[in-house]
Order: sequence, then C-alpha cells, then structure tokens
Amino acid sequence: MLRKNRLFTPGPTPLLPAAQAAMASFSAHHRTADFRALFTRVLAELKEFIGTQNDVIVTVSSGTGAMEASVSNLTSPGDKVLVLSAGKFGERWTGITKAFKCNVDVLSVPYGETFSLDDIRARLTPDVRAVFVQATESSTGTRHDVEGIAKIVRANSDGTLLIVDAITGLGTTHLDVDRWGVDVIIGGSQKALMIPPGLAYCAVSDRAWQRMETTSSPRFYFDLRKERKAAAKGEAAYTPATSLFAALGAALDFIRQAGNGNLANGRAVLVDNAELCAEMTRAGVRALGLKLFSASPAAALTTIDSPQGLDSGQIVKEFRESFDAVVANGQGEMKGRIFRIAHIGYYDYLDTIGILGALEQVLARCTGTPVEYGAAVRAAQEVYARASSGKRQLVEA
Amino acid sequence: MLRKNRLFTPGPTPLLPAAQAAMASFSAHHRTADFRALFTRVLAELKEFIGTQNDVIVTVSSGTGAMEASVSNLTSPGDKVLVLSAGKFGERWTGITKAFKCNVDVLSVPYGETFSLDDIRARLTPDVRAVFVQATESSTGTRHDVEGIAKIVRANSDGTLLIVDAITGLGTTHLDVDRWGVDVIIGGSQKALMIPPGLAYCAVSDRAWQRMETTSSPRFYFDLRKERKAAAKGEAAYTPATSLFAALGAALDFIRQAGNGNLANGRAVLVDNAELCAEMTRAGVRALGLKLFSASPAAALTTIDSPQGLDSGQIVKEFRESFDAVVANGQGEMKGRIFRIAHIGYYDYLDTIGILGALEQVLARCTGTPVEYGAAVRAAQEVYARASSGKRQLVEA
Repeated sequence: MLRKNRLFTPGPTPLLPAAQAAMASFSAHHRTADFRALFTRVLAELKEFIGTQNDVIVTVSSGTGAMEASVSNLTSPGDKVLVLSAGKFGERWTGITKAFKCNVDVLSVPYGETFSLDDIRARLTPDVRAVFVQATESSTGTRHDVEGIAKIVRANSDGTLLIVDAITGLGTTHLDVDRWGVDVIIGGSQKALMIPPGLAYCAVSDRAWQRMETTSSPRFYFDLRKERKAAAKGEAAYTPATSLFAALGAALDFIRQAGNGNLANGRAVLVDNAELCAEMTRAGVRALGLKLFSASPAAALTTIDSPQGLDSGQIVKEFRESFDAVVANGQGEMKGRIFRIAHIGYYDYLDTIGILGALEQVLARCTGTPVEYGAAVRAAQEVYARASSGKRQLVEA
Repeated sequence: MLRKNRLFTPGPTPLLPAAQAAMASFSAHHRTADFRALFTRVLAELKEFIGTQNDVIVTVSSGTGAMEASVSNLTSPGDKVLVLSAGKFGERWTGITKAFKCNVDVLSVPYGETFSLDDIRARLTPDVRAVFVQATESSTGTRHDVEGIAKIVRANSDGTLLIVDAITGLGTTHLDVDRWGVDVIIGGSQKALMIPPGLAYCAVSDRAWQRMETTSSPRFYFDLRKERKAAAKGEAAYTPATSLFAALGAALDFIRQAGNGNLANGRAVLVDNAELCAEMTRAGVRALGLKLFSASPAAALTTIDSPQGLDSGQIVKEFRESFDAVVANGQGEMKGRIFRIAHIGYYDYLDTIGILGALEQVLARCTGTPVEYGAAVRAAQEVYARASSGKRQLVEA
C-alpha cells in the first residue's frame, strides 16, 4: 500500500501548505524595503500571537538558541538561579545555566510528573535571580502550571525573573504572559506555527530588558539588545533566514484567518484544536488498554507507556515501516519505555482518526495479541461527537 | 477543529508533493533542448506506464478532448459506430459521436450496471467501424469487462476499432492494452497520475493510425497525426502546458520508484493500492448497513446509495462542512441518490481510515439516528490486516 510520510512528532510538525508555497517563491534580499516590511509585520504579529505587549525578538536558531539567549543575556556568572526540571528539556536549562556559570539550584521531579507549587515556594529565596521552566515538557508530554509558578515567582521578589520555554506550549496551551508576569517566553517555528525549524522567538519584559544592562555573561550572536535595536529599523542584526520569515508571514495569515481576523482568537483555535485532538487520542489509547505516561497530560502531545516487555522503539519502527507515520520514542531515560503522538499545530479530525487506526494495527503486530479493531477510533469518535454537538448547540443558541 | 481540504473525488485526485514542487519551479521554454528532452522522456515513459508498444500522444486538454480526438480522427460522417453506455461518460461518447455525425448505435444499460457480452455480440456487425466504451464508468463506479469486450470486437472484424476511455481506469484496473487489441486507450493527468487536470494522453494502435489516413471528420487542434509528427522531433504541435509536463515527469519518477525501478510494476502497485483502499471502503460501508450502488464495483471509486429518504447532497455537504473532505455526489440522473468516494492514485491507509471515520460521523448527523462508531473502521481494518499479513507471508516465504 502507498504510504504518505506524516509527522506526528512534537516538532517538526506538519507544514502548512500556504507557508510552503510562500517559502518556495520568496527570494527578496534582506536589506530591502520589501523585507523590512515583512520583518516588521511578522514581529508585530508575533506579539499578537503570543498575546503580549512586550517586544518580540526572533533569532535564527533552534529553540535552544533562544533558551541560551535568555540565560546569556539575563544572568552573570555566579548568579543564583532555580531550574525546574521534569525531563530532557528541564535538563537542558540545567546544562545551559551551568555552561554560563550560574549557581544552579535544580528542583527536579521524575519524568512524567509535574512540580508541587509548595516545593517551588520552599526553594525560592529573594536572592534567586531567575527561574527557568518549561510550559510543556515535550520529552514527557507534561503540562506545568505556569500560572501558579508565575504567582509564586512574582510574590518572591521583583528581582526574580521568570523564563518560560513555551516552544511546545505556545499555541497548545493557554498562557496569559503579561498578566501572569512572565519575563521571557520562548517559542519555535517548527511547532504550532506550522513551518520548518530554523527560527526561535521570545517576548521580553521591561524588567528583563533592564536586567540586561547589568549582566555580564558573554554573548554576541544572541545579544538581544542588538536585535532589538536592529528591529526598530525593520532589520535583523545578522542575515535572517528570509524564506522562513516568508513562511512565518503566511502562517500568521492562516492563524489570523482561523481566528476570524484576529490572531489571539486564532491562537485560541489552535489551542482548542490541540486539546480536542489530545482528548480524542487519550480516549482512544485508554480504550486499547494502554496507559498514559504523564500525570499532567499536555494537549501538545500524548505520551503512552509501551506495553509490558515491549521496547517502544518497536512501536515507533512499526508506525514508520507500515504507514510512514513518524511518532516519537521516549528521550533520555525514557527511551524504549514510552512513545509520543503529537497534536501541535496543523492536525485535523482525519489525521487523528487515521493515526489511531494505525495504532490499532501497530499494537496488534507488535504485541502479537489480538486488538479489538475500531475500539480506539470509536472512543475518539465519541469524544469528537460530544465536543462538536456542544459547539453546534452553542452556534444555534 | 481545523480542517484540511482533501479530495476524495474521482478526479481531480490528491496531488503528489514531488509533482507540485516540480511544477512550481519549472519555467523552461517549450522550444528548447531541455523541454524536448523532458517531453520525449515523458512520452516514452507513458508507454511503459500504460503498458503498450503503441505510440502515445499527449493533448493539452481535459480527457474529453482526447475522447473527441479519437472520434474526429477515426471516423467519417455517416460511419456506423457502437457506443456502450452505462452512465454519464457513456453518454458523452454518444454526444461526441453524434456531434461528428456518426451513425450511432447505443447499447445502453441502467446506471450502476455493466454490459452483457452477449448483448454486445448481438449488436456487432462487420460494418461497425468503431466501438466506444469506458474501462471504468466514473459516474457510477462501475468496472466494465474490457478484456471480454475486446475479444468480441477483435473477433468481429479487423475493420472495427476499439476505443477505450480509461481516464479513470488507467492505474486503477488491470488493462493489457496490446494483448487485448485495444486500438485507442485514453488517460487523463488528474487521475492515477496524481497531477492537476490539463493533460490527456492516448496510445494509438497501427490499425488506428492507418484508419486516420482515410477518415474525413474535421479536426485541427486534435489532429493526432500532426502531434505524432511533432513528437518525433521532441515537440508538441502547439504550445504544451509546460509545468504540467514537469509535474508528469516527477509523477512518473514516483511511480517507477514505487515499482522498484519499473514503471509497469509501479502501475501494478497503484492498481493494488486502489483495490485495497476500495476493498476496505466497501467493507466499511457494508458494516454501516449502507448499500453499494454498482453491480460491478470498480477499484477507482466506491459508489454508495444514499439512505432512504436522504438526499445524497446532504451527505456531500456534511463531509465538506464538518471535515473539508470533498466526496462526489451522483451525476446526471443519479444526483441526490448516490455519493462517491474515490481511491484513485495517491491514497493510503490513514486516508482510508480517516474518511471512513468521517463517514460514521456524517451518517449519524445526516440521518439523526445513532451509528455504531468504529464499525466501518473495524471492518476496513480487518480487510487491511488480512491483506497485509498475506503480503508479509509472501515476503517471508
């Protein structure tokens, strides 16, 4: 049977066709009025997409580049910082803050769990210069309580900055950045924005911009103040990835359109979409007798325990070989023990039903035991029917 | 929920991404060595794809253009011809042959049925100059027995040409053109070739080329001899649709690759794929208590009776509005009474499971009666599991 290559990975995510077309045809030079107009528009619209009044900076880098930028711009060697770590990306905060010689306190919980707010409160002292956390830990499919964490951080001291890696979280979970007092929020192009990897973006609070005036960690390429200055003239400090900006412009157009002319609504549509796909998937997974891995499941992705005695790599391989569907293995210590199906960005009903149908086949093959075909799909359909009949009643009311 | 626009129509069919990319980037002038090389290659490869030694002509037209070409090139006014008509496209043969003033005998069977070979035999007399038929009648999803019909025509007289509209049939059903003695076989770009509409192609037998020397129907744009002459120099007689040729080149590359380096094998892969998608769909449809419309169902598409009292237009509308999935209504006299789900070309397992899952929702909404969610998908999965375990055993043996 023919097999279409389809990504069900938590980044890169399926590409938006309009963005692919925009990217393929774009060739403007970056020091021209045309590109300045695009660049300025994209930066302004990213503010609407994030839902912030803070200035947004785009870096030509992976999300990790923007994570490094937040450390190198906002800390000095020896600064006391608190890292909240619940998986591979929490560990990445530890790695970066240590590389930049911070005095790092790590509050760590096991993979698949989230933090107790009391534990965070207990670790926070007024001398903590910054707190680093994920909104969604992609390695485990876990959503953290950013609102609750922000409340504690803001109550701690005005000198404690809160930096949130929302690379997977933006567009898959509700984040009220300014009201909650998040100082830096970080996103990536290859996630809910539905374009390829290569761009990261962050919104930076006034408090954080002020901090940069006094910090001494070395930085050059990721010097956010330099980018802010250049952006005021409609430019990037260094050569920007022009075609990705064209793709981003098209993606933001799509999101605005999905939100009936409003980007914030469009972001809410994306979040609702991920939530419905995730709810359908969780119901389907449970119907097959499989166990969800995360204690606080994110809408961005569903993380599933591999059945007893079965390496999840086998499941990932079977998805790829039989259907050319790419799902993710566990990362770090969870490799072989879990697998992950993503719902970030451009997924719809047929995708969700299709991947659950594939899961039924994969499971039957990998375990060698019969699976009740249609069981996962049926459970997902019941979720969909309830959700969409609710919507219909709302529209008719 | 987000909705991706997806075609489940019997042409146009889903586009092959590699063909889209080739088309988007192509801009060569048609009177250049580069284009001549592409044009010559595509014509040669279409022979392999069709499975014929006969010369292939590509016309810049819809499939109907090539149907007209076969009439205008191969008949003279007053010629006695037999049209086998079992639906809207059979009626099109009648319309064209009458427009070109043939003496038309129409053997017609009701929509959804196919011909009795005895009836055809009874109508054939040695003075019949040509027989026109569809391999697959797209309006009803019916496969005709081209092999059986060809046997009768060949036994009738060497002066009786057999012209087969295989626009939907090529790449969805087995056709041994040369061995069966088909004189003209016609295909279209927007079908199993997985590229947009705009090109038609036909393979023409020596017998048919000879006939053209004596026929007198008026033709200019569709003069096949002129195209054959130009093709010998690597060119089209008139300006060809260059970007579609680029797409066609990429599609043929894909089909060859799917056939492990062999285009005939690639065609067989497409036929098997359509057959498995169709078998899955038929099983799913039956599991929902729906009735198949055709007495001789084609692999190209599945045609389904609308439930009693329900206009199939409602079903088509619900597919589009809820899922942006485009399925086809009936045509001609069957409008409102049947709907059609296509399997031509670029469909895979996830597409098939997805559209059946959508059908379950659509049916529940349109009939207002409960549907056993997962029932269609389960039946389709059982077909898939049987078929793929068979393949596995074959590979292991």
